Amino acid sequence: MARPTLAVVGATGSVGAVMLDLLSSRRDVWGEIRLIASTRSAGKSLMCRGESLPVRSLTAEAFDGVDVAMFDVPDDVAAHWAPIAVSRGAVVVDNSAVFRMEPDVPLVVPDVNHEVLGHRPRGIVSSANCTVAAMIMAVAPLHFEYGLRELVLASYQSASGVGQVGVDTLHDQLTKVAGDRLLGSRPGNVRQAVGDDLGPFPAPLALNVVPWAGQIATLGWSSEELKLRNESRKILGLTALKVSATCVRVPVVTGHSVAVHAVFAAEVTADGARQVLRNAPGVILVDDPEAGEFPMPIDAVGTDPSWVGRIRRAMDDPRALDFFVTGDNMRKGAALNTVQTAELLAVELSR
Amino acid sequence: MARPTLAVVGATGSVGAVMLDLLSSRRDVWGEIRLIASTRSAGKSLMCRGESLPVRSLTAEAFDGVDVAMFDVPDDVAAHWAPIAVSRGAVVVDNSAVFRMEPDVPLVVPDVNHEVLGHRPRGIVSSANCTVAAMIMAVAPLHFEYGLRELVLASYQSASGVGQVGVDTLHDQLTKVAGDRLLGSRPGNVRQAVGDDLGPFPAPLALNVVPWAGQIATLGWSSEELKLRNESRKILGLTALKVSATCVRVPVVTGHSVAVHAVFAAEVTADGARQVLRNAPGVILVDDPEAGEFPMPIDAVGTDPSWVGRIRRAMDDPRALDFFVTGDNMRKGAALNTVQTAELLAVELSR
Repeated sequence: MARPTLAVVGATGSVGAVMLDLLSSRRDVWGEIRLIASTRSAGKSLMCRGESLPVRSLTAEAFDGVDVAMFDVPDDVAAHWAPIAVSRGAVVVDNSAVFRMEPDVPLVVPDVNHEVLGHRPRGIVSSANCTVAAMIMAVAPLHFEYGLRELVLASYQSASGVGQVGVDTLHDQLTKVAGDRLLGSRPGNVRQAVGDDLGPFPAPLALNVVPWAGQIATLGWSSEELKLRNESRKILGLTALKVSATCVRVPVVTGHSVAVHAVFAAEVTADGARQVLRNAPGVILVDDPEAGEFPMPIDAVGTDPSWVGRIRRAMDDPRALDFFVTGDNMRKGAALNTVQTAELLAVELSR
Repeated sequence: MARPTLAVVGATGSVGAVMLDLLSSRRDVWGEIRLIASTRSAGKSLMCRGESLPVRSLTAEAFDGVDVAMFDVPDDVAAHWAPIAVSRGAVVVDNSAVFRMEPDVPLVVPDVNHEVLGHRPRGIVSSANCTVAAMIMAVAPLHFEYGLRELVLASYQSASGVGQVGVDTLHDQLTKVAGDRLLGSRPGNVRQAVGDDLGPFPAPLALNVVPWAGQIATLGWSSEELKLRNESRKILGLTALKVSATCVRVPVVTGHSVAVHAVFAAEVTADGARQVLRNAPGVILVDDPEAGEFPMPIDAVGTDPSWVGRIRRAMDDPRALDFFVTGDNMRKGAALNTVQTAELLAVELSR
């Protein structure tokens, strides 16, 4: 069979840009690559695999002849257009939240559960939430070794998780507050300095942490917190996994971090966990506090793996581990996981 | 009895400055207030209760006639000088970590466990760690209602937790990175922009989160993480309380936050917890995410209470609550808790 045709839907977005970077640097499995975006962006050209490609409008016809279509677009756009792409014969790898929890849609993190794709993939395949993807890369191999029972999670999520407008807003705010040593030391003065333009955030992000990400879901939980619970359960196939998560936005550009407390069925040791993670695909072990080595966004940004460190056995529970994970939310949290999933589909489609 | 004489040891430090502010604004129970600092700072004058007071050198004689001495100085200075102050007849309220876990030293958070002071206080009394103090204000009333069994904690600690040098370092770094929209988006470029001067932190703090606070303690735990466990146990009188904490420094000037997962003996409800916290002393309930109301450092800074919000019952455990707490680490986390404790001593000494 000829190499499959790939569509990149949302090619002009910030995740789309990382997708094109990845397609240009990874082992190439694709025939034609077709860039698709909103009508507003159509007509532009973008570089991919060393050549300039035109951006086409998002229409039903744009999917004719497409084998695999990667979507990174807002939820409502994905809800409308992914089924249309499927009806035109494409398998869709969607990075929105819309389809992830549907029973017949595989939710994929390739290094963890690629087998859910099956051998005749069709329809829609979902790529995991950004925070889930980074975290699950470390949690899954420990689950396979010790049998996961419970997760208590607290996140440190970056501005780019809400797109380039989040990054721009953070930098604008930092410009207003940096260097004035009183700012952040007196009540209300950061709000005053930042002004009314909060961008996509519910409060100023500079010199602050905002314990809210996503939309109101239910009983006080945010949509982001429920994703951590529900997607973890689905990806690991653990329908009764106990999960409590608190999602917090921090003034970081890119790189989502999670403080993880994981309780297992079997007793654990920190050294055993380190050994498991040292051998895990897509994981970098960074665990030497005395040498200043622990996972941090400024180091993980721009890299593919999940960085894991601060590994400790709980002092009061021999079945529990505490650790810290950081991953690039634009890569494993979005573009990379989608591209890896699409590549697996390319292999299956070529059989 | 005449009003007691108070000494403020470390009066010229950043916590000392907040102590003098508080002494000038709270109901006044003191006779003479004597300011004491290192020889280097002696001879300066500072304002307190509307008058300019000279700063005296830290000597044994400086404590003669002192009834209560508040200490906010480095651990080694406290270890040396607090016993000397006691030998001169003062009761010491110490904000260092040196004496907190000694069996005969009360560890006090006044609204929670003032009874440990007893009626004839003498010797050394310790004030709790900054993160512990903010967190325990919310946890203690819930414990009294539901019976606490376990805490899983993740902190978001500010730069001023390590003193003014932390604040200065953060602002210097922010000046170097603010506005350059590529910074934080590419690997290593924040480290390059910040340069080698990390101040008191093990890594750049601007545009980053650093999962390390304090010194190496044992088995991979930091001293700060062990304080959260050991001080919580002592303050609540729960010798078998299970505690796992991950301490993380964030680019915030002042205001320590904690994501709390608390497991109780009895079943809980979010509304019940809100009712408990609405009536708790030293707590402000800020829990309306749809209106953008949750606890944040930029709002809590400069205020006395612990701000508590994001209260949810765990979806998979009817005995567990998740919530978020923010407190001003210079106030309840340091100066305020010390001043409140000293005021209780003043009452006891006046009996």
